[in-house]
Amino acid sequence: MSRNTVRNILFVMCDQLRWDYLSCAGHPHLQTPHIDALAARGVRFDRAYCQSPICGPSRMSFYTGRFMFSHGAGWNNYPLRVDEWTLGDYLRPLGMRVALAGKTHMKEDTDGMARLGLDPVSEHGVLVSECGFEPYERDDGLHPDRSADPDLAYNRFLRQKGYRGDNPWSSHANSTESDAGETLDGWYWGHSNGAARVRDEDSETPYMTDRAIDFITEMGDKPWCLHLSYIKPHWPYIAPEPYASMYGSEHILPVQRNAREEAEAHPVYAAFMRHKDSMLFRRPEARETIVPAYMGLIKQIDDQFGRLMKELERLGRLDDTMIVFTSDHGDYLGDHWLGEKDLFHEASVRIPLIVYDPRPSADATRGTVSEALVEAIDLVPTFVEAAGGAVPVHRLEGRSLQPLLDGRDVVWRTYAISESDYSGRDARADLNLAPMDARCWMLRTDRWKYVLHETFRPQLYDLEADPGEFVDLGADPACEGIRAKLKEMLFDWFRNRRLRVTISDEEIVRRTGGADRQGILIGYWKPSDP
Amino acid sequence: MSRNTVRNILFVMCDQLRWDYLSCAGHPHLQTPHIDALAARGVRFDRAYCQSPICGPSRMSFYTGRFMFSHGAGWNNYPLRVDEWTLGDYLRPLGMRVALAGKTHMKEDTDGMARLGLDPVSEHGVLVSECGFEPYERDDGLHPDRSADPDLAYNRFLRQKGYRGDNPWSSHANSTESDAGETLDGWYWGHSNGAARVRDEDSETPYMTDRAIDFITEMGDKPWCLHLSYIKPHWPYIAPEPYASMYGSEHILPVQRNAREEAEAHPVYAAFMRHKDSMLFRRPEARETIVPAYMGLIKQIDDQFGRLMKELERLGRLDDTMIVFTSDHGDYLGDHWLGEKDLFHEASVRIPLIVYDPRPSADATRGTVSEALVEAIDLVPTFVEAAGGAVPVHRLEGRSLQPLLDGRDVVWRTYAISESDYSGRDARADLNLAPMDARCWMLRTDRWKYVLHETFRPQLYDLEADPGEFVDLGADPACEGIRAKLKEMLFDWFRNRRLRVTISDEEIVRRTGGADRQGILIGYWKPSDP
Repeated sequence: MSRNTVRNILFVMCDQLRWDYLSCAGHPHLQTPHIDALAARGVRFDRAYCQSPICGPSRMSFYTGRFMFSHGAGWNNYPLRVDEWTLGDYLRPLGMRVALAGKTHMKEDTDGMARLGLDPVSEHGVLVSECGFEPYERDDGLHPDRSADPDLAYNRFLRQKGYRGDNPWSSHANSTESDAGETLDGWYWGHSNGAARVRDEDSETPYMTDRAIDFITEMGDKPWCLHLSYIKPHWPYIAPEPYASMYGSEHILPVQRNAREEAEAHPVYAAFMRHKDSMLFRRPEARETIVPAYMGLIKQIDDQFGRLMKELERLGRLDDTMIVFTSDHGDYLGDHWLGEKDLFHEASVRIPLIVYDPRPSADATRGTVSEALVEAIDLVPTFVEAAGGAVPVHRLEGRSLQPLLDGRDVVWRTYAISESDYSGRDARADLNLAPMDARCWMLRTDRWKYVLHETFRPQLYDLEADPGEFVDLGADPACEGIRAKLKEMLFDWFRNRRLRVTISDEEIVRRTGGADRQGILIGYWKPSDP
Repeated sequence: MSRNTVRNILFVMCDQLRWDYLSCAGHPHLQTPHIDALAARGVRFDRAYCQSPICGPSRMSFYTGRFMFSHGAGWNNYPLRVDEWTLGDYLRPLGMRVALAGKTHMKEDTDGMARLGLDPVSEHGVLVSECGFEPYERDDGLHPDRSADPDLAYNRFLRQKGYRGDNPWSSHANSTESDAGETLDGWYWGHSNGAARVRDEDSETPYMTDRAIDFITEMGDKPWCLHLSYIKPHWPYIAPEPYASMYGSEHILPVQRNAREEAEAHPVYAAFMRHKDSMLFRRPEARETIVPAYMGLIKQIDDQFGRLMKELERLGRLDDTMIVFTSDHGDYLGDHWLGEKDLFHEASVRIPLIVYDPRPSADATRGTVSEALVEAIDLVPTFVEAAGGAVPVHRLEGRSLQPLLDGRDVVWRTYAISESDYSGRDARADLNLAPMDARCWMLRTDRWKYVLHETFRPQLYDLEADPGEFVDLGADPACEGIRAKLKEMLFDWFRNRRLRVTISDEEIVRRTGGADRQGILIGYWKPSDP
């Protein structure tokens, strides 16, 4: 390995893992020693934000290095336009094999490909359809019976292991049993306190870990970037034993919500409170049924991550591999009267982010915690720089974390942005909004969290005085000045989106005033003039 | 022809033709009877704006139906990204042949095509490279010796006609002669008072008109959309006889500028005043040398347009062809101490726009003048609707002019937008700006013209009190309230750009709440629950 670049990148993502459900982030009952060990080797970014608190758009930002507004794929299964460049477009020319094991939530731009005559199953078509990743194994992890791929690799694996049925993903890995032996469907969250009908080693997280180990082993000394993307701890909230029985109500943190929030809720927030998943968390038994399963799934990820790290060590890959551990967004789990994600409370929008850089340049920061406001889009430029490439700032809207990893004194950004397009959610229909009006934006500074809504008044939280985000100052006359200032910052942000993607700033500077050189004379009077 | 749709579309564009250099728009000395006749048959839109007062981005907006901010091609030769959909993508599926005769200023996205493995000379590659037009004959009209295409069709034509030299475009069509017979290069504007070294019928405007007539004749009764795109009256300001001698200093309008403008100029405006082309117009002889040539070139266009209309009539095409006459932007010609275009005074940003709709539905408005604020991007949806297609509002940011053509009572927009990205201009270097900071935006309401600048204070003009745009109220404390209001409108505009291009609003509404239907249950407790 050159000491200046990393040879490999292991980019591990969980789905719906809250920032605070790791022991290194302070969870008192959920011990995650293997993930903590990565934090001890690298930097844990304690104030990291996803670009949109929902799978699809968040991931499209992770993979393109661009804000949701810029890449345009605003919600799950809104296709990513065919010429959005992705991680693979940047790393492949640097000699890396760029592959996927797990989930991306990528929806291909069928119309865009057809318009260009691009065959979706051609080499280029596959890469564009898979968000730039070679699909070593793609599995987005949700396989309800009525839309399950009959040839799903994981189902083939389960059947080989002796599990029966057309869709053992559903009937075994994501179902449990009643005491009477009746199968209970994991789609129903009331079944989450049962154990999955599958052995630990046959469940999804170990399975995908195996696939990652297969890939890494196959690659030997050849450079790679692997996106290992776990579907868990995303619902169905069903863990196999021993994880299913590991946590009880004594391990559950108190729910974070109060009556004032509900009474004074912003209209959009109130509409999300009325969602089925939010209402479900009002059941007294909801959290004690669901949260232990959620914790068990995380504990399993930690164990599997430990197994993977051990394997990397055995293969000698710890010295030349940059390793990132993160999640696409969080999970309200009933906090703030909400389920799921979508909105901008920390439970939803803040993500775990640990970066281990094997190079000596990062020795000074090992085991430290960074308070810098970092964003999901920072990873693509970080990877490009680590792999020795030049960062194309005319497309990439994030910033390489390298100066932070090196402990250099650097002026960092003053705010983080996240966006929500809830046009596809019931709240949009409930509020009777046109799809373009069902959008909101978060701007979070050191102290403030400001949320601008189309149509409705903004929300505002003072994170110093009110770290729990219970008091919405969005209509408080005393805060008019700060709201105006934050709104102005957001306007600056909009104007400066990188949509001029086909030419670099350097090239623009190089060309400036260059018409003369091509013989195009503008504003000359006569040849005899000076 | 179905009475509900038009069979053909003739989309005529001039280059750098000011809105006010037509007799139907009030020019007292320049008679343009053939263009006026189109206005008498259709609607003349008196307050039409280009989306960016410079060729490349203006045209990319005309052809994509999208604002410059959205399509991203901010200046000449900044490539249009490979998956921006263009007019041809919308009209071709409706059965039209969509072709080009003349200029587009399209720069293809080579990197984008290479990334997708798209061969630029394949059928799809050509369309994408040519901005969606089949290049019946592409000619962008600027052919300096050092970068001239050796095989330029127009040069082959000239040589066939007996004109000599490697590049008769330059040596004949865009040069003149001294009294001593010496060739004088038309790139130098001081030579504009001479006649081109080419016969009228061999000059560029008649040549391209012939190509249009060839195409239309070839097509017979088959449906087509032809973009006839003249390079003139864009510089080189060299007209052939008889047009070269048609106008004299007695026909020149007084220059529109005053000392106060110069003394109080906004920094960006001042930097443009220092451009070579602007400085040139300070010469006392500049306008009387240049403007008569500019007028002659327009007069020639009018005559050729008349010839074309006669041919359409002869072919019976006047009954089934929608005809549009417009320009990509204007020309300061020394007004406001400026040459060229780029900024937002009416001389630069306002464009002629006449639309003739052959259908009986438009009978009520024939010969009328509309004061609606219309934009270049309105043409694509107008064409799509006229051709019987559904307007994809998730991509197209303009509005079909059909209700205005039909004389229907309709709530129209309250402001027009234009944008300028001067990152490639000397003013950017002069002001020592980063490329992203060399951008400004115009918002024009019925009364106000507001210009927001990155880095610098805004400009503001009261078009009621000051129709000549001589008094910049951008720093006037009395106008703080209106500036804030206009700025807020501009912020709304930014947020509502159509970047979610891969899914329609209708499809979003259709899908809302549809996860259940796929078997993805979110927030259900138990099957036994209601």
